[in-house]
Amino acid sequence: MRNRSFLSILFLTLFFSLSAQEKRLRDYGIEIGVVKTGLLNAITDVPGVMVGHQTLIKGDSIRTGVTAIIPHSGNLFQQKVPAAIYLGNGFGKLAGYSQVKELGNLETPIVLTNTLSVATGVNALVSHTLLLPENEKVRSVNAVVGETNDGYLNDIRGRHVTEKDILQAIKNAKPGKVEEGNVGAGTGTICFGFKGGIGTSSRVVPKNAGGYTVGVLAQTNFGGMLKIASVDVGKQMGHYSDNFKYATDGSCMMVVFTNAPLDSRNLERLAKRAMLGLARTGGIASNGSGDYVIAVSTAKECRIPYNSDNAVQTLPSLRNSAMTPLFLATIEATEEAILNSLFAAQTMTGRNGHEIKALPKKQVLEMLKAAGKIR
Amino acid sequence: MRNRSFLSILFLTLFFSLSAQEKRLRDYGIEIGVVKTGLLNAITDVPGVMVGHQTLIKGDSIRTGVTAIIPHSGNLFQQKVPAAIYLGNGFGKLAGYSQVKELGNLETPIVLTNTLSVATGVNALVSHTLLLPENEKVRSVNAVVGETNDGYLNDIRGRHVTEKDILQAIKNAKPGKVEEGNVGAGTGTICFGFKGGIGTSSRVVPKNAGGYTVGVLAQTNFGGMLKIASVDVGKQMGHYSDNFKYATDGSCMMVVFTNAPLDSRNLERLAKRAMLGLARTGGIASNGSGDYVIAVSTAKECRIPYNSDNAVQTLPSLRNSAMTPLFLATIEATEEAILNSLFAAQTMTGRNGHEIKALPKKQVLEMLKAAGKIR
Amino acid sequence: MRNRSFLSILFLTLFFSLSAQEKRLRDYGIEIGVVKTGLLNAITDVPGVMVGHQTLIKGDSIRTGVTAIIPHSGNLFQQKVPAAIYLGNGFGKLAGYSQVKELGNLETPIVLTNTLSVATGVNALVSHTLLLPENEKVRSVNAVVGETNDGYLNDIRGRHVTEKDILQAIKNAKPGKVEEGNVGAGTGTICFGFKGGIGTSSRVVPKNAGGYTVGVLAQTNFGGMLKIASVDVGKQMGHYSDNFKYATDGSCMMVVFTNAPLDSRNLERLAKRAMLGLARTGGIASNGSGDYVIAVSTAKECRIPYNSDNAVQTLPSLRNSAMTPLFLATIEATEEAILNSLFAAQTMTGRNGHEIKALPKKQVLEMLKAAGKIR
Amino acid sequence: MRNRSFLSILFLTLFFSLSAQEKRLRDYGIEIGVVKTGLLNAITDVPGVMVGHQTLIKGDSIRTGVTAIIPHSGNLFQQKVPAAIYLGNGFGKLAGYSQVKELGNLETPIVLTNTLSVATGVNALVSHTLLLPENEKVRSVNAVVGETNDGYLNDIRGRHVTEKDILQAIKNAKPGKVEEGNVGAGTGTICFGFKGGIGTSSRVVPKNAGGYTVGVLAQTNFGGMLKIASVDVGKQMGHYSDNFKYATDGSCMMVVFTNAPLDSRNLERLAKRAMLGLARTGGIASNGSGDYVIAVSTAKECRIPYNSDNAVQTLPSLRNSAMTPLFLATIEATEEAILNSLFAAQTMTGRNGHEIKALPKKQVLEMLKAAGKIR
Repeated sequence: MRNRSFLSILFLTLFFSLSAQEKRLRDYGIEIGVVKTGLLNAITDVPGVMVGHQTLIKGDSIRTGVTAIIPHSGNLFQQKVPAAIYLGNGFGKLAGYSQVKELGNLETPIVLTNTLSVATGVNALVSHTLLLPENEKVRSVNAVVGETNDGYLNDIRGRHVTEKDILQAIKNAKPGKVEEGNVGAGTGTICFGFKGGIGTSSRVVPKNAGGYTVGVLAQTNFGGMLKIASVDVGKQMGHYSDNFKYATDGSCMMVVFTNAPLDSRNLERLAKRAMLGLARTGGIASNGSGDYVIAVSTAKECRIPYNSDNAVQTLPSLRNSAMTPLFLATIEATEEAILNSLFAAQTMTGRNGHEIKALPKKQVLEMLKAAGKIR
Repeated sequence: MRNRSFLSILFLTLFFSLSAQEKRLRDYGIEIGVVKTGLLNAITDVPGVMVGHQTLIKGDSIRTGVTAIIPHSGNLFQQKVPAAIYLGNGFGKLAGYSQVKELGNLETPIVLTNTLSVATGVNALVSHTLLLPENEKVRSVNAVVGETNDGYLNDIRGRHVTEKDILQAIKNAKPGKVEEGNVGAGTGTICFGFKGGIGTSSRVVPKNAGGYTVGVLAQTNFGGMLKIASVDVGKQMGHYSDNFKYATDGSCMMVVFTNAPLDSRNLERLAKRAMLGLARTGGIASNGSGDYVIAVSTAKECRIPYNSDNAVQTLPSLRNSAMTPLFLATIEATEEAILNSLFAAQTMTGRNGHEIKALPKKQVLEMLKAAGKIR
Repeated sequence: MRNRSFLSILFLTLFFSLSAQEKRLRDYGIEIGVVKTGLLNAITDVPGVMVGHQTLIKGDSIRTGVTAIIPHSGNLFQQKVPAAIYLGNGFGKLAGYSQVKELGNLETPIVLTNTLSVATGVNALVSHTLLLPENEKVRSVNAVVGETNDGYLNDIRGRHVTEKDILQAIKNAKPGKVEEGNVGAGTGTICFGFKGGIGTSSRVVPKNAGGYTVGVLAQTNFGGMLKIASVDVGKQMGHYSDNFKYATDGSCMMVVFTNAPLDSRNLERLAKRAMLGLARTGGIASNGSGDYVIAVSTAKECRIPYNSDNAVQTLPSLRNSAMTPLFLATIEATEEAILNSLFAAQTMTGRNGHEIKALPKKQVLEMLKAAGKIR
Repeated sequence: MRNRSFLSILFLTLFFSLSAQEKRLRDYGIEIGVVKTGLLNAITDVPGVMVGHQTLIKGDSIRTGVTAIIPHSGNLFQQKVPAAIYLGNGFGKLAGYSQVKELGNLETPIVLTNTLSVATGVNALVSHTLLLPENEKVRSVNAVVGETNDGYLNDIRGRHVTEKDILQAIKNAKPGKVEEGNVGAGTGTICFGFKGGIGTSSRVVPKNAGGYTVGVLAQTNFGGMLKIASVDVGKQMGHYSDNFKYATDGSCMMVVFTNAPLDSRNLERLAKRAMLGLARTGGIASNGSGDYVIAVSTAKECRIPYNSDNAVQTLPSLRNSAMTPLFLATIEATEEAILNSLFAAQTMTGRNGHEIKALPKKQVLEMLKAAGKIR
């Protein structure tokens, strides 16, 4: 009986997935890399992780939103998680960098939004944290908020994201399937000249490498010359610029979560590898692209309590020599998360009538087929 | 005639200075270091620099405020200045670090406030910037906002600083004499267990070293064991903790401006030296002390236009080998700025009836006299 | 007459190139990226740059060497060049990092060799520098020496590289064509499980982007899953490891030279992009891979004299907003330099009878043909 | 009986100390800071730590040497220790930085010597490591060698330090009392215009702060305006330069060891505080001063084995919030180590007849007495 209802749910989930949302790369038989994915092929494959979106599409010119990524369902300020942030290219306004660097941990949900709404995100995270039970005496909160600039499609100067929207994204957070494309912080973004958005993917390293899961969520808003599964799609379509008249700017926020026990030093090394995943999609980290990677270990035994009677903490962490499989997993999951954002995103019209077309999937799939990338 | 009215103004200024405000270290004949000060012994000795405060003292528990430091009176976004931020101890919430690090420049006024009002500061600076003439198309702003935690005297959780307060501090900015002590962002701060606040000082390096001015403004809110002019005041008073029951935490924001032509690399080196000045006052950069230094070159010939027809910029900058005098100037001005904050600050009562006493100047002056530090 | 002898030399050079050395990627009609190459498609396309090798192949087990890269033919200590070093993955023994970081310049030739010969390289560069005319009073030299570990094929513990070998590599340095493959510091290296070595490539950005040249030289000794011109060669050949039993460790030294006028801050940003080029070849920066990038501007107007009467230097440098074309050029030239090392390297047997096979070019070319990558 | 022979040894040690070596600060009743010292007031108060010198004084112009500091008597390559290096001012040639930064550990003894002998130090440490039992297959060694420039008194260009000298310093290493002044790597150094050298000091934090020991050893070769126990000795003696004609350059190597269990992140924070100790002596980190701090945790339970069957290591480490007492201990021990070097060093004549006078202790002690610093 149990199996049966489980199967029903699985079926419904699958049905919903195929009807309400665009197909993902793997639905077409396209494989990225060689490490196997988690069950959902999403950041939420990392146990306990929750993602929530708040999407703002209003009138002619509001095309923006918020995405919240939450490491565990407890009180994050009281039970911090090891973390690191890597500045791939620091032309951006991410909040919370220096404290994560200094103390090696994260004490709020991660919020992604648009460039000019970072401060609103911080204010909301401060409110959220101050109001949690047990936090009555908290007077210092390091909010981590990332951003990309959606100002081509969105009236970014209008600063339409409210604290309520940020808090709603946090409330919306749930485990399980993650919506991709034109949602949340990806609502108004542009990637390789096509409509970008939110994308996610995961990898599970082999048992002999620890069996850990690495999940990545990306907010894609950058340029370069698109490669999909090693096929030079952008070059073949002539959709790039070798004379640099075509803007490649924009940013990419990458969030990397793993249940492997890692300290902040090795999390920073992990974060660095996400940039290699971005490179595989054809990204070039152009001058104007604020590319940041936030890496977090969700391993329960690595939690860092705010208060402790013991001045010494004894935490497990992976040895340096065991990191390589996780590096590869991060590269592949980042690559696929970015590509998934492109596959899920749909053509959007916004501010001043600007239109950004979705990736022409039919044409792209033909190219991939010709290259033998579709099984 | 001209001289006469000039003298009158000078006299009035002096009179005002002595009556309305506490005497500064040098008014007692106490000298810090060996490099001579600028005319005002303030960050505003650096030509063009303006400082503005907005002080919030309301009811029993609001003891906070805002201080704005502005490199030049033009449109900062259109005419950026070379800048660097040094993380002395990154346990803090300063906004704007990564872009300054990556691009080497500053594009907004610097705002200092309390820890939980940083985001409000960012929002205000974004508003300020978007609304300036010529900035109609600007869609990306890197606001630099520093903070210390005034939560012992101030109801910091109430987040009483508004965007209007931030903008008012910017409007209040003016060249000339800088108010010190319990004003602006220093309203509710604590330093070495005494009432801290805002302090400033400057140095002019000798002609053979370029004759440049270095000005420092500090928001002092940290601990350790106070030294004044190399006299172990804290130790003599037993006002410190060798058993670590006494809290030394808190933070220090240091802003270093100079008219020397410096690129961001040498500005970061300059910023680093401010920490040595803090050390000379007995500061120890305790775990909880978010110590940040923001360094800026105001040299006119170093401005970086937002737009330019020329992809190559040709900027003057000091050679590495010419930096030492500026390093010493920064150390001394930082030391004196911190001490000036203590001399200017007055006893304050705030949240929950908490009282922090001013430095007992009479007692301190006697110690300094005994040590031969008062001429 | 002059033209005629020039043509003869050109012809002979070409002939020699095709007979004595393996064909390069472009000789097969394979293109990497979209930016055009320089005349030689080598780091020596950057005007004034010289490269010299000293190859040590002796007996059964000595398979190592030295490669020197020299920014200009003058006295480098007296006429330093702007420089930066980026730590892609710092598991390595490169010498000279901290001074380049602090002062922003390079004062010796760059030497590459094996891991345990770095110190010998430093000693040789110190000797070289002390003995140059004008340097009679020099008492401090920051030698930059990079390395990868060739200990599988080479008796690295024997430390067979002598100071004389290092100095000979410097003496051998010349402009023009650069030998690739099993030469100099690439003599004993392994890349993607095939024989690696030295490779080089260059790009010339379009006139509207300044027309600058970027040249890259790589010493390839790392792992991952090989991609050539976006074709998953390693995956197709099953020549990789998804279960991580197959070692991916090893290192990559990348040297990026450009005649664009760049300060050290933007050179560090440029250096960072070389890692994206490495990613495009399938490199994953595994734990044990010491991946370093040394970037230098050779622009004559950017030279930094050791002594100067003027404390202020006025140097041109590219604006941040003009960097993107150089970023792309660096990515592409790095990718192609790495691939060129694989195409040039030949099967080698060394220490303990260990054999590392050359890339099976016939098979690889067929794959590339099938993927439409060969014109 | 046991106590008796222990007392005899103690007596003899004391006698030797007072006769064969200059008195130290505390022998005059001068106290630095407020935290109590260890038994020997030396880096060797940290259990297991050994120090060895090799002093080279030959003929008219050889005035140099080597100092080795060893964390434990085992095979360091097989049992690495957590470590960090902080670049106070990176104008120096220290070897080994990037790998310590990346991997967070130290695998060789620390060697200090002169600027142009760093490579010889590296070669010797490589030899030392390769030859240790169990290391037969080691093919990669990250040697950590620091330096300052003793070229005023020493014929540094002659490079008189041999690998044998380096190895001899390691052999000489022993626990217990540490010779200070003109010995080892301090033989030819200059500090605040007086003869510098090697100095050491230690602190033991109170039981309620963990009771840990912090030991510092410094090689002093830098400038500024000397302060001793907060007395402005340099200013009073006019022994400084406010017109910058007087050279302040030179470097300081600081080695900080502790038996507190610390990870590399908190060790880097600890290392940073040593610069605050240097500032308390009047040091200004001038442009030419290569100031580096190497911090190591010797806690047995924190050792990192080279090989392990377990990919996960479970190491204790102090929580961030427990770091402050160690920060203060580091500041004070660094301050006192530097001052001890000045008290121990004696007038020396060297290269070209250059003479550097010892600190005029009689005069200095009078100043300190006048300031009430001598009990």
